[in-house]
This record gives sequence, C-alpha cells and structure tokens, in this order.
Amino acid sequence: MPLDVALRRVTAGPVTAPHPLPGFARSTVDGYAVRAADTYGVSEGLPGYLTVTGAVRMGAAPDITVSAGTAVSMPTGGAIPPGADAVVMIEYTAEALPATTGPGTIEVVRPVAPGEGIVRADEDAAEGQEIIGGGRRLRPQDLGMLAAAGVTSIRVHARPVVTIFSTGDEVVPPGTEVLKPGQVRDATASALAALIADAGGEPVLGGIVGDDPGALEQVLRAALPASDVIVISAGSSVGTRDETANAVARLGTPGIWCHGLAIKPGKPTLLAECSGVPVIGLPGNPRSALVVFRLIGMPLVGLVGGAATVPPEPSTQARLSRDLASATGRLDVVQVTVSGGVATPVFGVSALLSVLTTADGYIVIPEEATGLDGGSQVTVTLYR
Amino acid sequence: MPLDVALRRVTAGPVTAPHPLPGFARSTVDGYAVRAADTYGVSEGLPGYLTVTGAVRMGAAPDITVSAGTAVSMPTGGAIPPGADAVVMIEYTAEALPATTGPGTIEVVRPVAPGEGIVRADEDAAEGQEIIGGGRRLRPQDLGMLAAAGVTSIRVHARPVVTIFSTGDEVVPPGTEVLKPGQVRDATASALAALIADAGGEPVLGGIVGDDPGALEQVLRAALPASDVIVISAGSSVGTRDETANAVARLGTPGIWCHGLAIKPGKPTLLAECSGVPVIGLPGNPRSALVVFRLIGMPLVGLVGGAATVPPEPSTQARLSRDLASATGRLDVVQVTVSGGVATPVFGVSALLSVLTTADGYIVIPEEATGLDGGSQVTVTLYR
Repeated sequence: MPLDVALRRVTAGPVTAPHPLPGFARSTVDGYAVRAADTYGVSEGLPGYLTVTGAVRMGAAPDITVSAGTAVSMPTGGAIPPGADAVVMIEYTAEALPATTGPGTIEVVRPVAPGEGIVRADEDAAEGQEIIGGGRRLRPQDLGMLAAAGVTSIRVHARPVVTIFSTGDEVVPPGTEVLKPGQVRDATASALAALIADAGGEPVLGGIVGDDPGALEQVLRAALPASDVIVISAGSSVGTRDETANAVARLGTPGIWCHGLAIKPGKPTLLAECSGVPVIGLPGNPRSALVVFRLIGMPLVGLVGGAATVPPEPSTQARLSRDLASATGRLDVVQVTVSGGVATPVFGVSALLSVLTTADGYIVIPEEATGLDGGSQVTVTLYR
Repeated sequence: MPLDVALRRVTAGPVTAPHPLPGFARSTVDGYAVRAADTYGVSEGLPGYLTVTGAVRMGAAPDITVSAGTAVSMPTGGAIPPGADAVVMIEYTAEALPATTGPGTIEVVRPVAPGEGIVRADEDAAEGQEIIGGGRRLRPQDLGMLAAAGVTSIRVHARPVVTIFSTGDEVVPPGTEVLKPGQVRDATASALAALIADAGGEPVLGGIVGDDPGALEQVLRAALPASDVIVISAGSSVGTRDETANAVARLGTPGIWCHGLAIKPGKPTLLAECSGVPVIGLPGNPRSALVVFRLIGMPLVGLVGGAATVPPEPSTQARLSRDLASATGRLDVVQVTVSGGVATPVFGVSALLSVLTTADGYIVIPEEATGLDGGSQVTVTLYR
C-alpha cells in the first residue's frame, strides 16, 4: 500500500529501519560545532576563545574539520563536521571580533559536554531496528517515521469484509419516499456500515431479507465464502429472532455461541461462528443494534483485521447529573449529553434513534452495580 | 453528497424531518394491543379476560380494530391497530383457552396505562423538526437517523483545501533511496497530510522549496487562491525561519499575527492570515511540527471546514509515573506511553520522531504550573 493512503491501515508485520536514522549526526541547535574539551572551565567571567573556520550549510556534507581551538558555525539540523563532538548554542557565544567576510573569533561563556547539542546518526533508529510494530493501525506520526526512513510502501492486512443483512418484512430501503403503514426504512445498515469503516472494515450491504428463514439461510450461505464477518439486524419480534437463530445454527460449525446478553439495551443479541466466520445477530431496533455493535462488533472487526490491540474509544470524565438505577447482573449503557463537565442522561425507549443522535456519548454501568449516584464521577465514551 | 459516503462530512445546514418518525404508532414489545381501560384493576389473583380478534403482521397496515373487551396480537415494531391505546407485554398474559385456528381468550394479570408499550408516530421526530444540526460532523448514528427519515443525500461543506509546503535545502522527497550527507527525507508532509485528513480537510502536497525566500514567496502566492489554509514546515534554523516569516509577511494583509508561541516543543511557530487565508508556519523539526499542528492546526482546519464545534480528541485518565518539571509561562507537551493506568513520559530531543511513534498520547502541563508530581492524576490525550 502506498504510504499516502495507508492511514489507519493495519501493518502486516514489523517494519525495520533500512539504514540508521537520521543517518548522520545533526545539530539540535543554532550555534557552533566545537571540541567539548575546548570549553571546559569557561564561564561568563572567564570566556574561552575559539577561531571560527567556516560554516556548515543545510543539506550539504561538511567540507571542513574542527580541530583544537576552532569552531564551525552550525544551523539547527546541519551535519556535524568531523572532529567536533558538541555544539554550543549561539546564546552562549558572542562574536569577539566584528564579523568580516573571513573567519572571526567567538567567545564561549558556557561549557558543553561531549554529545551536547547533537542527535547521533542512529538516535532515531539504528539500522535494522523495528520502527513500526506489526498489527499496528498506522497513525499520522507513524507515516512520518516511515517517510523519514524512505519506506514509501508498506504491507498491510486486507480490510476485513463485513457483510450486513437487514431482516424483517417491515424494512424497506432508505430511498423509499412514501412508506406504507407499518413500514420502516432501514436505518441500521447505513449506521453499521459507518461503524464498520471506523473499525477498519470494508462494509458490504447484503440487502434486506424478509421474514423467511429459508431465504435468510440462503443469502447467509451465499455470503459466507466472501465474508470475514457477517452482521444481521435480526428482526425485532421473538418469532423473527428465533427464525434468525435457526438460520444461523444451520450455517456451519461450531454454530451459536450464545443467544442473549446481560446488557441493556441489546439483550437479544446472537453470537455465532459458522465455518470460521463470526456472525453477530443484532437486536432488531436500530438503537440497541448500534449500542451492541459498538461494544462487541467494532473490536471484533479490528481484531479480525489484524490489529494487535483494539484502540481505545475517545472518552472524557464528567459528573453525573442525577441518580441512575440499574439492575445488578446486567451491563447498562446509558446515553448522555456532556456540557460543562456534567453528563446528563438522555432517556427514551430503546427504539428511538433520536436518543443516539442527541447524545454526545455513553456511560456504562457495570454488572455488579445497582446504579450510580448523582454527582459521581463517570467516564463518558464519546462519539466522534 | 450521497449518505453512504457522508461519514464525518460537515452538514451545511440543519436537516429537518420531512414527515413524522417513525411515522406510525408502533409496539415496543411483543404482546397484545388493548384498550388500557380494559386492564384497570387486574392482578395475578384477579386477571382480566380479553378476546383475541386477530394479529398484526410486521410491515403491514392493521386490518382490524380493537374494541372494548378485545385484544390483537402484536409483534415488537408492529403498527398499533385503531382503537388500541396500549400494548400488554406477552409476559403479563396467558392463553386462557387453548390456541385454535380461530380467536381465543387471554388472561391479563397486570394493568397498563394509556401509551404503555407504544412509540408514538412522531416520537422520534415530528414533521419539520430538526433531526441533525448544521455544522455537525456526521457520526454513524446520524447517518442512521437520516436513513430512517428517507434523507439519502445531504448538503455538506466542501472539505477545506490545506496546502502543505516543506522548506529547507536539506529536505528531499521520501522516495529518495540514498541520502547524501546532510540530507533528510520529508517526514512532516506525510504526517501532516494524515492529520489534515483526520481533521476533515483535503491535504494538497505543495512540494519542497529550498532555502530561497523569493522562491518560497512565489509558490505561496501561487497556492493562495486555491487554498483554504496553508501550512509551511518553516525550516529549522533561525535564518530560515526568518526568511519564511518575511515571505509570509509579503503575502497579503493582515499578515503575521504572531511569531513564537509559549509552548514546548513548538516555540518557533508562525501564525498569519494573508488575504483571508490562515497560514501556519510550523517548526522545522518533524516532532515539534506535529505537536503544534495537533494543538492548533487541526481545530483550525475543522472550523474552516464549517464544523460548529471541534470534536474532543480521545483521552484517558492515568497516574503519572514520575515528577515532571516545567517552566512557568510555557505550555509543555510531554509524550507518554500508557499501560495499566500509568502514564510514563517518553523523553528524547525534540528532533526525534521515534518519541512520537513510541508514545500512546501526550499530556499538557499548563502555563501556570511549575511541573507535575509523580503519582498525580493526568489526562492523556490519546493518539488514534
């Protein structure tokens, strides 16, 4: 993958430095390259004097050597000339003789230790050293490091293909202008596709399947070979959910891992693995489906995509505006707005998408808690 | 912009619901549509009896009316039939007569209030109500809401064009296989392009300009009309920085806002506005440039791109592993790794890119602080 399109792609293996970086000893300051020993014991009251024998130009090899009693003018980032082992900052020098076209003399009023003011030739990376680990989702600075090393293309994992199916006789495409009574547009697929892309996956819209277990099994089976993960909006009524589970169960081994999670919203979630492909059956209502997919689906897509770790979601600390009750033994996900350091719960039945679009993020009440007190400090995972 | 490619694009104005959502009264549970009054006073010990006169199918208009003493079987999400004002959950009913092909009778053991078990036809959004605000960077759930409303394309702001120039006689393209002594590859441009894309901008690589103020002014002037923001890696030595400032100063009014920030690393930063275009002159070394661009450039790109607010960066709370000194009157940005709730500073001279690739994020020591104590709680802004 060329570097300029590799942002957030996952490295297929570690990348090592093909040569030392930065590759030559560089000055970290504007000043003078010197022999450190020539500055020992100097002070404001008793400056040392060095003869300036030339200047290093940026981007050019130094054509001059620093010998005892001499100094060479250095720009920040310039190559250290042979013979020098330190750079004195310009702030700690003064021109002892007026600048002329020829070499002058400088006063040095502070001593430098060997290595001071210098980045070693292999300080950013030694030759062969790992500069980017395998399984890393490439960040902007990682691309910078690779560019610095001259690595302009990189082996990355393919994006995992995540096929999305929406089920339900009531579900129609978003482009349907006029709904018949009882119909709803497919909101979940659009939002899921975005979450999958965020997690590093390649969403494929498998379309809408009516409440017909035979038809569902057929499309699932057809999608299996080309999918790394399958996600189903599993219909909202009990009967439909059971039919989805039956279709998934027939799809391949080992089959259904669990059907039902101790989480609210999101209880009717199905987790399965069919012929090596993870299958997630999401609750039928869009809001529950999106809550569960964030918690379970996105990390799964990241790991299937070769990421060594799942990056943390953005979060912030806030004070809870009011008491929140919660049943023990169940994880509660509560949508909140955040303003001025206060997290205010957004309530509404789980079918309402507007609760999610109003929210800035969510808080999680753990299984063992019976609720949270108003005023307590909470971690809000932020939507971005 | 079609909805399926609108993720993270910024809305050009508010979007209102073209019709009520969900559009019809829906059941939130599996159960029976009833008249609430028919359930008043019922209990486990004294159940009420209702005649089931039919069932609602998903996605279909109800073809039956609920009258006194009757109930209609409801799937979750089904359309509430005329005459009903509540839905009793199936858990609070029992079949009083064995199920037959014809209507049966159910026992109801809990009363319901009017509206219970029902999402109103306009509960997610009333007709004409704003469902997505203007200036919003679209999140996955926002796309879901728009899909639900049948809004399949949306007006968004154009991505701001951000032109990047790299300066310095020592800078060569990343594709340069063998460096001459004193040369470095352009690491900053690749990383900046990624940060600009993250902030919602469209990066344009303007290329590398040698240390020639005339040439720099010329390329800047040429880029001005087609750029919404200009970013310059302004060279690392004092002389080069001054030349960059001179070139920017001649570019247009009002010109340079400030030259030098009380921040470490990143002090030699130039902020200007030339003929209406914000210009950022970044420090010459890649690490400082990226630190400053995250703090100043990314929010700027977001706001120029029409975003009403700048989304917070991901962050986490951690305990600092050791004391950190800091000069007052200066913002310090310290790179850290985070593991097991402990933030450990990554040290190194500001020229080292490996400090950024090693880090998981950074902490900011504010201007007024003289440092941070080891063990204190810090907010780490996380790289993603």
